[in-house]
Amino acid sequence: MVALQNDRFLRALLGQPVDTTPVWIMRQAGRYLPEYRATREKAGSFMDLCRNADLASEVTLQPLERFDLDAAILFSDILTIPDAMGLGLYFAEGEGPRFKKVIRSQADVEKIGIPDPEQELSYVMNAVRTIRRDLNGSIPLIGFSGSPWTLATYMVEGGSSKDFGKVKGMMYENPQAMHLLLEKLADSVTLYLNAQIAAGAQAVMIFDTWGGLLTPKTYQEFSLQYMQRIIDGLQREAEGREVPVTLFTKGGAQWLELMADTGCTALGLDWTINIADAKKRVGDRVALQGNMDPCVLYGSEETIRKQVKEIITDFGDGSAHVFNLGHGIHQHINPDRVNVLVDAVHEFGKR
Amino acid sequence: MVALQNDRFLRALLGQPVDTTPVWIMRQAGRYLPEYRATREKAGSFMDLCRNADLASEVTLQPLERFDLDAAILFSDILTIPDAMGLGLYFAEGEGPRFKKVIRSQADVEKIGIPDPEQELSYVMNAVRTIRRDLNGSIPLIGFSGSPWTLATYMVEGGSSKDFGKVKGMMYENPQAMHLLLEKLADSVTLYLNAQIAAGAQAVMIFDTWGGLLTPKTYQEFSLQYMQRIIDGLQREAEGREVPVTLFTKGGAQWLELMADTGCTALGLDWTINIADAKKRVGDRVALQGNMDPCVLYGSEETIRKQVKEIITDFGDGSAHVFNLGHGIHQHINPDRVNVLVDAVHEFGKR
Repeated sequence: MVALQNDRFLRALLGQPVDTTPVWIMRQAGRYLPEYRATREKAGSFMDLCRNADLASEVTLQPLERFDLDAAILFSDILTIPDAMGLGLYFAEGEGPRFKKVIRSQADVEKIGIPDPEQELSYVMNAVRTIRRDLNGSIPLIGFSGSPWTLATYMVEGGSSKDFGKVKGMMYENPQAMHLLLEKLADSVTLYLNAQIAAGAQAVMIFDTWGGLLTPKTYQEFSLQYMQRIIDGLQREAEGREVPVTLFTKGGAQWLELMADTGCTALGLDWTINIADAKKRVGDRVALQGNMDPCVLYGSEETIRKQVKEIITDFGDGSAHVFNLGHGIHQHINPDRVNVLVDAVHEFGKR
Repeated sequence: MVALQNDRFLRALLGQPVDTTPVWIMRQAGRYLPEYRATREKAGSFMDLCRNADLASEVTLQPLERFDLDAAILFSDILTIPDAMGLGLYFAEGEGPRFKKVIRSQADVEKIGIPDPEQELSYVMNAVRTIRRDLNGSIPLIGFSGSPWTLATYMVEGGSSKDFGKVKGMMYENPQAMHLLLEKLADSVTLYLNAQIAAGAQAVMIFDTWGGLLTPKTYQEFSLQYMQRIIDGLQREAEGREVPVTLFTKGGAQWLELMADTGCTALGLDWTINIADAKKRVGDRVALQGNMDPCVLYGSEETIRKQVKEIITDFGDGSAHVFNLGHGIHQHINPDRVNVLVDAVHEFGKR
């Protein structure tokens, strides 16, 4: 095994001393990069790209050629689990992810099995192994999954939604079926993330993209409870190091204390909260990841540097901060802007 | 002038004693009602319906025939002001509102004028007058407007958006142009709401549908500041009564204290906050309106009654609560469910 040349990202998540603030960008391998678009075209569909370990590794490493990033993230999709459950994931042009089959009843839920990661999802594990080989110890690799609630929203709605009436309707109308679905998803995600860790993921992140749609009570009952179940079941050590777990509920700034209580290592923050306030509320129980508004990257170099400096200053003392955007980078961002961001983080984050 | 037969809604907003909790429903005149769909078809386009005072009054009054509601709300759209500014509002089937022209630069902003409500928006004032006549003193009429920031999002994006990259990009790239646009919008909204009050609106509400997309700092600078300017310019008395002003930032639960400081009468709450916590934070400075998840209406009668009871119990002592959903009613809700809701509010809210 090759020793890690840059472990700043892992150290910050664990609150260990760092020379400067580490940074990575959600969706750093994506459509804003022309080289990504070229590989994507070569691969065929988006899922063809995810299923080809060599090409998935190629796009995972593309942003590292351009930017001085401190972590790589597995190139994949949050919806691989429902796809492996037989729902038939595809991407309609300009419409985002869609499923051929949807879940609407207890009977639908009962038919679903729990995928074996090394069977139905072996292409993901192959990608993890290939990326680890190609990274060659330069920086750590992050594995990830969608949260059970977030996966359920797509499985019930059949894709993205404007008002999430079907999934939230099912939650209020048939909470029992919803809980059964979420249990199966929590067990699937636990196996899936543990398999990624076994295959070489050095940190994992749970994306609860749609947890913020819930009320305080339903968030705890239908989203947080199942993320807790996953965290309780995760393999937290691999290759002699702790494997940090980051929990990210978009729109969940109100519930940070509850999220920190799960025993996760770090919280992902969107941009709707000041990081100083977040830190005050969770203390040193968890590290914080975030939280620049992705739209700042439409601004000038000066604006970007000013905003980076503000967030780093607001975070203040301590090393438990990983810089990131508050959500994925937009596809129309000029890649040069990302260089400005990354360099500013390393400059202003210097200890 | 006819005396109000039921002023429970106005009394609750002003914190005066009430016999039970008043209730109205955002988008109570809308597509979930078959009689609305019939009138809408007769009228032609959505904007044709808004522009016909008799038909606008007809649909405003339709839900009052079915449900024991405590307030009526002007049937109109939040985008009448940008339309009056010459942007050409239309509704594309299944896509929501669109503008023929968009605002992208300082030069675009400079060309915009401030509409005279009794000229370019006289159809709205006619609707207000007609509805007041047709209500005949039964319950009060609410006037409304979009917030400057929310109007700006549609004017820059050209319609709804997934990531609001254009308007937030403009905010970061060209804050000066954005401020000029927001100033013009704030002045336009002030004139517009004062004209609605003069025409007979007995309460007004400002819908900041997209304020929750902002960071804490940009919310204050680009949204709240301009709502403050409007509130400072509003006519707060008419027909010998105080005209209550309700401020509603969807996704703004983190900023309730700041919103309460504007001097508004009440805050609208979405469903992401517990109303007991909201009350604890703002004290008795403002009344609270909300805050049931609209998706509860997909649930059983028992579920609806349980959720209504919970919110009323959570609100606790005092009269300064107007029951509502946390956002507009969905179009696929069975109207009978609204009866369950309204009756439950009056039952559990009894003093």
